[in-house]
This record gives sequence, C-alpha cells and structure tokens, in this order.
Amino acid sequence: MNPEEGADDREQKVVGSYRGFSILDLFLRILAIVGTLGSAVAMGTTDETLPFSTRAFIFQAQYDDIPAFRFFVISNGTVCGYLSLSLPMAIYHVIRKGAARSRALLISLDAIMLAVLTAGASTAAAIVYLAHKGNASANWLAICQQYQSFCNRVTGSLIGSFGAVLILILLIPMSGLVLSKQAM
Amino acid sequence: MNPEEGADDREQKVVGSYRGFSILDLFLRILAIVGTLGSAVAMGTTDETLPFSTRAFIFQAQYDDIPAFRFFVISNGTVCGYLSLSLPMAIYHVIRKGAARSRALLISLDAIMLAVLTAGASTAAAIVYLAHKGNASANWLAICQQYQSFCNRVTGSLIGSFGAVLILILLIPMSGLVLSKQAM
Repeated sequence: MNPEEGADDREQKVVGSYRGFSILDLFLRILAIVGTLGSAVAMGTTDETLPFSTRAFIFQAQYDDIPAFRFFVISNGTVCGYLSLSLPMAIYHVIRKGAARSRALLISLDAIMLAVLTAGASTAAAIVYLAHKGNASANWLAICQQYQSFCNRVTGSLIGSFGAVLILILLIPMSGLVLSKQAM
Repeated sequence: MNPEEGADDREQKVVGSYRGFSILDLFLRILAIVGTLGSAVAMGTTDETLPFSTRAFIFQAQYDDIPAFRFFVISNGTVCGYLSLSLPMAIYHVIRKGAARSRALLISLDAIMLAVLTAGASTAAAIVYLAHKGNASANWLAICQQYQSFCNRVTGSLIGSFGAVLILILLIPMSGLVLSKQAM
C-alpha cells in the first residue's frame, strides 16, 4: 500500500463522519421545528373562561394577558421560522463535504437563536412558576388554583420550547466539531 | 517570487488574523467576567427594610425572597466561574495558532454557558418587569411602589448580566470564524 492510498482512506473516513453529523444536524433541526411550532401554537391558542362567568362579569384567562407569554409565542415563532429557513443550508451540508464558511455562519445564527429561544422559554417559565406557587413576600397569589386548565396548558407548552433549546445547544458543538476536524 | 513564498505570506496573514481574534476573545472574556461578577454581587447584596418597620412588624425585601433572583445569582456565579477557568485556554489560543480541537471545545462550553446565563437573566427580568408593572389580570400588584430602592438595585443588576450574554453571543461566532479560516 502506498502512502497516497492511506491518505485517501483517512480522508474518506473523515468525510464519512462529516456526513453522519450533517444528517443528524438535519434531523435535529426538523425535531426542533416541530417543538417550537407546537409550543407557539399551544401557547397561542390558550384561553379559559371560568364556568361561573355571567354576562356582566367574565372571568377569563388568555395567554396575551401576560406579556411574558406573548414574548414566548413571538420567540418560538421566530426560531421556528429561522430553523425552517436553515433547512436548505443543512441539506447543502449533507451533500457538500467542505462548506466551512457556511458552517461558521450557521454556528453564529444558531447561537443568536439559542439566546432568543432561551430568553422566551425562561421568561415564560418564571411566570408559570409564579402562577403555580405564588410569592408570599410580594403578595402575589398562585392563580393556578382558579385557572387550572389554563395553567396546565401553558405549563405543557414549555416542553417543546425547552426541548428545542437542548437541541440548539447540541447543534452548535456538532458544527464546531465538524469544523475542527476539517481544520486538522 | 516563487509560489512557496506566496503560500508562506498567505499563511502569515491568516495567522495574524487568528491572533487578532484570539486577543479580542481574551479581552471580551475578561469584560464578561466583570459583568457577571458585578451582577451576582449587586443582586446578592440587595435587601431593603422600609423606614416604617416596627419591632413587631418588619417590612423587608430581600433578593432571596424570590426564587428567580436566587437563580439569577447562581447562574451569574456559575458563568463567572466558567469564564475565569476558560482564561488559560483563551491565552493558549493567543499563543498557539492551531488548536482547532480546543477551539471547538470552547465553542461547545460557551454555547452551554450562553444558555445558562440567558435563562438566569431572562427569569430575573420577567420578575423585575412584573415588580415594576404588575399584572391586572392575575391580580399581581407592582411592588416597586413600596420597595423603590430594592427595585432600582435589582433592575440595575440585570445590566451586567445581559452585557455578558451579548459578549457570549459574539464569542461563539468569532471562534467559528477562526475555525472556518483554518479549515479552508
């Protein structure tokens, strides 16, 4: 075996591991799209009217009564849109082995979107926590005792969003690893 | 001029631009350490006793009455510690031109810490917003009218934390760019 062949073999192997990562990247992106879309829709369609409402007094809880929930829907929608637009790029990375510059671009955009999504999810989580537990020192009551179905719905809608946060945390190191392999 | 020399020149130039980024990276890390440390200390030392407190009734607001603020201090402390530990690595990147693997490692850790810090800062911001504005639908009153100095202090302590978030969002693309230049 001459040294040329050995180098070729090594390159083949490296390219193979790129492709594995790129395919996983594409798959995780689709999963995160589903997660953020589900969260945005679940939160955005949440409202509850209590059964003892009369025509004069309506006891109603809606997601957009609380600014943090509105921000949650916006940030999930934004990240969902970004991830959908990043799919062609992810497919391009599966096909092309190099593409170092576009991989670096994707890392940058992923980092920004990670921050946007984490901010949205944490803000909503802070309010959901307060709605469940209340806070005695600030005299904020737990509203979940009255609006149970509302509370369950908004709590559930956090899941998809935090799932997508975890996926984005995974995507960035994966792209970094591929880049570092190319650099060596 | 022979082609060898041209390649050498190009390499020199690329190495030069690495070093610029690496030095900027080091500088930004120190800035972020200051920001997160300042935020953690400012929040952690916040408490206010109202002047009309009597011996029997004490009207006091402390940062650890509110779990979100405790989480804020913990996340800022964690990221501050991580950034301090990452300084030797950042210095190593200034000295060594290659170091692709450790750059990729730093991208991964930076991404995780970005998520931790954003979560802490957003959670605290959600509660600070509530303390200032209150929420009529949930019947949560704005406590800032009573605890003004407490509120100003916790609001101010968000600044360093969000500054550090912005710096981390910058650091990840910078490392990505250096890696992609090495890969090409």
